[in-house]
Amino acid sequence: MLGPKFPWLLWAYTCCCSTSFCGRVVVWPTDASHWINVKVLLEELVLRGHEVTVLVPSSNLLINYQDTSSPFTFEVLQVPFSQETLDASMEDFLNFWMNEAANLFPWEIMWTMKEQLEVFTNMSKQTCDTLVKNSHLIAKLQQAKFDVLIADPLAVGGELVAEILEIPFVYSFRFSDGNVVERQCGGLPSPPSYVPASTMGLTHQMSFTERLQNFLFYICTDLFFMKFWRDEWDEYYSNVLGKPTTLCETMGKAEIWLIRTYWDFEFPRPFLPNFEFVGGLHCQPAKPLPKEMEEFVQSSGEHGVIVFTLGSMVHSLSDEKSNVIAKALSQLPQKVLWRYKGKKPETLGSNTRIYDWIPQNDLLGHPLTKAFITHGGTNGLYEAIYHGIPMVGIPMFADQHDNIAHMVAKGAAVQVDFNTMKTQDLADALNTVIYNSTYKENALKLSKIQHDQPVKPLDRAVFWIEFVMRHKGAKHLRPAAHHLTWYQYHSLDVLAFLFTCTATVVFILFKCCLCCCRRCGRIAKRKKE
Amino acid sequence: MLGPKFPWLLWAYTCCCSTSFCGRVVVWPTDASHWINVKVLLEELVLRGHEVTVLVPSSNLLINYQDTSSPFTFEVLQVPFSQETLDASMEDFLNFWMNEAANLFPWEIMWTMKEQLEVFTNMSKQTCDTLVKNSHLIAKLQQAKFDVLIADPLAVGGELVAEILEIPFVYSFRFSDGNVVERQCGGLPSPPSYVPASTMGLTHQMSFTERLQNFLFYICTDLFFMKFWRDEWDEYYSNVLGKPTTLCETMGKAEIWLIRTYWDFEFPRPFLPNFEFVGGLHCQPAKPLPKEMEEFVQSSGEHGVIVFTLGSMVHSLSDEKSNVIAKALSQLPQKVLWRYKGKKPETLGSNTRIYDWIPQNDLLGHPLTKAFITHGGTNGLYEAIYHGIPMVGIPMFADQHDNIAHMVAKGAAVQVDFNTMKTQDLADALNTVIYNSTYKENALKLSKIQHDQPVKPLDRAVFWIEFVMRHKGAKHLRPAAHHLTWYQYHSLDVLAFLFTCTATVVFILFKCCLCCCRRCGRIAKRKKE
Repeated sequence: MLGPKFPWLLWAYTCCCSTSFCGRVVVWPTDASHWINVKVLLEELVLRGHEVTVLVPSSNLLINYQDTSSPFTFEVLQVPFSQETLDASMEDFLNFWMNEAANLFPWEIMWTMKEQLEVFTNMSKQTCDTLVKNSHLIAKLQQAKFDVLIADPLAVGGELVAEILEIPFVYSFRFSDGNVVERQCGGLPSPPSYVPASTMGLTHQMSFTERLQNFLFYICTDLFFMKFWRDEWDEYYSNVLGKPTTLCETMGKAEIWLIRTYWDFEFPRPFLPNFEFVGGLHCQPAKPLPKEMEEFVQSSGEHGVIVFTLGSMVHSLSDEKSNVIAKALSQLPQKVLWRYKGKKPETLGSNTRIYDWIPQNDLLGHPLTKAFITHGGTNGLYEAIYHGIPMVGIPMFADQHDNIAHMVAKGAAVQVDFNTMKTQDLADALNTVIYNSTYKENALKLSKIQHDQPVKPLDRAVFWIEFVMRHKGAKHLRPAAHHLTWYQYHSLDVLAFLFTCTATVVFILFKCCLCCCRRCGRIAKRKKE
Repeated sequence: MLGPKFPWLLWAYTCCCSTSFCGRVVVWPTDASHWINVKVLLEELVLRGHEVTVLVPSSNLLINYQDTSSPFTFEVLQVPFSQETLDASMEDFLNFWMNEAANLFPWEIMWTMKEQLEVFTNMSKQTCDTLVKNSHLIAKLQQAKFDVLIADPLAVGGELVAEILEIPFVYSFRFSDGNVVERQCGGLPSPPSYVPASTMGLTHQMSFTERLQNFLFYICTDLFFMKFWRDEWDEYYSNVLGKPTTLCETMGKAEIWLIRTYWDFEFPRPFLPNFEFVGGLHCQPAKPLPKEMEEFVQSSGEHGVIVFTLGSMVHSLSDEKSNVIAKALSQLPQKVLWRYKGKKPETLGSNTRIYDWIPQNDLLGHPLTKAFITHGGTNGLYEAIYHGIPMVGIPMFADQHDNIAHMVAKGAAVQVDFNTMKTQDLADALNTVIYNSTYKENALKLSKIQHDQPVKPLDRAVFWIEFVMRHKGAKHLRPAAHHLTWYQYHSLDVLAFLFTCTATVVFILFKCCLCCCRRCGRIAKRKKE
């Protein structure tokens, strides 16, 4: 379905299909910011002449399947949970992280996290059910003869659909807690000595204590998730596929892992040939701003502007928090554009304008933009990297602390604690990134790395999806580690064998020596006698 | 110096320099087939407007510094060993591997290998001396203000020159024995459970015994080379640089490692972001053959032709061996083009023509070519992959056994033992790869992988060299593993700490239990009394 918003796609479709491979892509999307990112990739696939069908739950956050101008075909999965239930779950989730977590003990946070995971897992299972228990839909999808499925491991189920349809699948992925999916299912080698686990907020240069923390976190996440998946998913997958299998084994069949970061953001680490780091694929040069916004930006003069958003999920803050922030912003000589849907703070200065929505990428690419206040979501953060804008990070949940920790380590950001933040903290942080030139220089360094690649991330992502379609997979990139048990992988059986051999030899030598000593002793005794 | 053979380079030079970055490249080359490969890369750099200066020993095998038509500037290092000495050493080396090694015990082979290594190390040191002890030359090179040095770790010294000139360096590398250089100096993670060590002839899917062999080979090569380098080079490097250092540490400073293989040849394995796999960078579409050769090829009719060469180093064989080969070839319906400089074999069939030199790439790309008989050198092997030609491998030394093992594992080659080969063995092998269609199909699969890349290997190699020149290095790709000791890298200190803690807790608990038991025992005893 090529809507009126994309009339040129009809031309592109005809054009590409007549000259090169034209494939059919089916998508098992992950909601929220993940969808914002993957949508750019899917639009590019449509531009290149591929048909894109999105399997979308009837209740979701950001996937507007009723948009007739969308270039995608939507196959709506009628899930049993309502939009209100989903919205309430998300509200609970955000409320916990923004208002409650800071006052709890770590084990209370862990317990709530497990409960939240169970809530979302339950919804995932219900979504899967609408497909795997609908033989009519499965037959329809099989008849469509898709060439590849695109999924995100965060929304469990994509790999299962690919197995049912007997087609290869490609992951678009940001991270899992402690990288447990990438490591345990994807085979990604991650020495805990210099590869910090996701969400730990560590860098690649760790003290002994940090390496200890990292090591233990790897083990804890491994133990937790392997058990959680076994309890929640392994039997489900085995039943649906009619053979004994596990979620992790099925995930491990991904042909290509498109990781949504790059070496401007990541610390250098080992990876595998079927992992492509395509961070920033959604970034593009800035387009002109709306007239009113441009006038406001220009009115800032030499001081420039600050762009402020807390992402697509956080629309409002408590009165206390919004006033702390507004007061800090009012003390600055810069003009501020704040994306905010909550109640207008009383302390809002004349230099600050509140918007329901801002063209974030275009603002970050504006020559007058001096700083970006961000929650630390990967999409926004990559737009700041792309345009070389220093950041003030106010992370709240998920990977946001970790993302900001990366930017702080690379000298392009200052972090402010959301829960303890005072007016002066935010004002100081902004003055630091704006007036200490090293932050701008470091942001520009990252920007150069992002721009100076042999192939743009979007083109690389498209290339590997098309490769999988052309070759029915990418088996030549799949490491043999998938065929090994964990003790074989770590050569523990070889070490045990060598240890046994050495111990046996030492034991025999020891016994021989003992025997010789005794015999010598006896001879000496006899001689003495 | 842009000679008459490359007049268009003058245009390219002017053109590129006026529009983009134009750099100065200095090269510390490795001789023989390594030079053949890197020469293609250097010619491309000249084409893109960079100046290339090659530091060449006055006595060498294939680097013709007297060629006035060369697009490179040569800085000749007047080494104390003569051309005759070098040739004699190479002849000894080849003679050992082709005629003697097969009749010796493994430890005798190891001993001779060590002696050969010492001979070539001695020459390397003499070559280094001509530069590091020539302050006039160093000053000249410093004044030239080079942007990058290109070297190959096999010819030790490049990294030392880069340190002296205080410029970043890029490696172009095929392999080291047991990948000891890549692993120990480059930080390349290589789990011995599924990453076979170079020269072992193993694949990525190993039995327990093979994994044991692989594990032990890693350890043996580590121990041997770390000691050999300590004895031969570490003091030399420390003295020249005026600070305590090692060869391995200096090698580890390479900004980018351009590895001359790709995933058509390699088994999937972990690697680092500063490793680029650019195998096949020298390959190109076939050009028309010389008239006489084309006529001979066309005369083969439907049977097609076989291309046969044993590489740039092996010019002749013993009478016995050449007659065995010629007789096997004479039994085939194909026409054979054999590159050979030795005595014409008596059993040479009318279907076989001997040439001093053949346009190997053009012949392998000819539509009538059915098979390639090769010693297994990486350059020729990649030309066969590029054109999708199945192979019969007759490996003799260095990485040749390993290379052919890769092609055999990928189903594109049959191996014949050089030492025990009978006429029928070679004839059978050729008939197999020509008439069993799976070999051609597998060769074509590899060819597709080689051709279907987001960026051609030559362009990727050039990109990263230019990147290093533009950014004065590529530090953002350098893993923090370089800052760790071996026990920190493997988290052995963390494990030791955790073991100690666990043991202490267990000991205290045990003591407490013991204490309780004793107390209970005493109370019971008193009650009894």
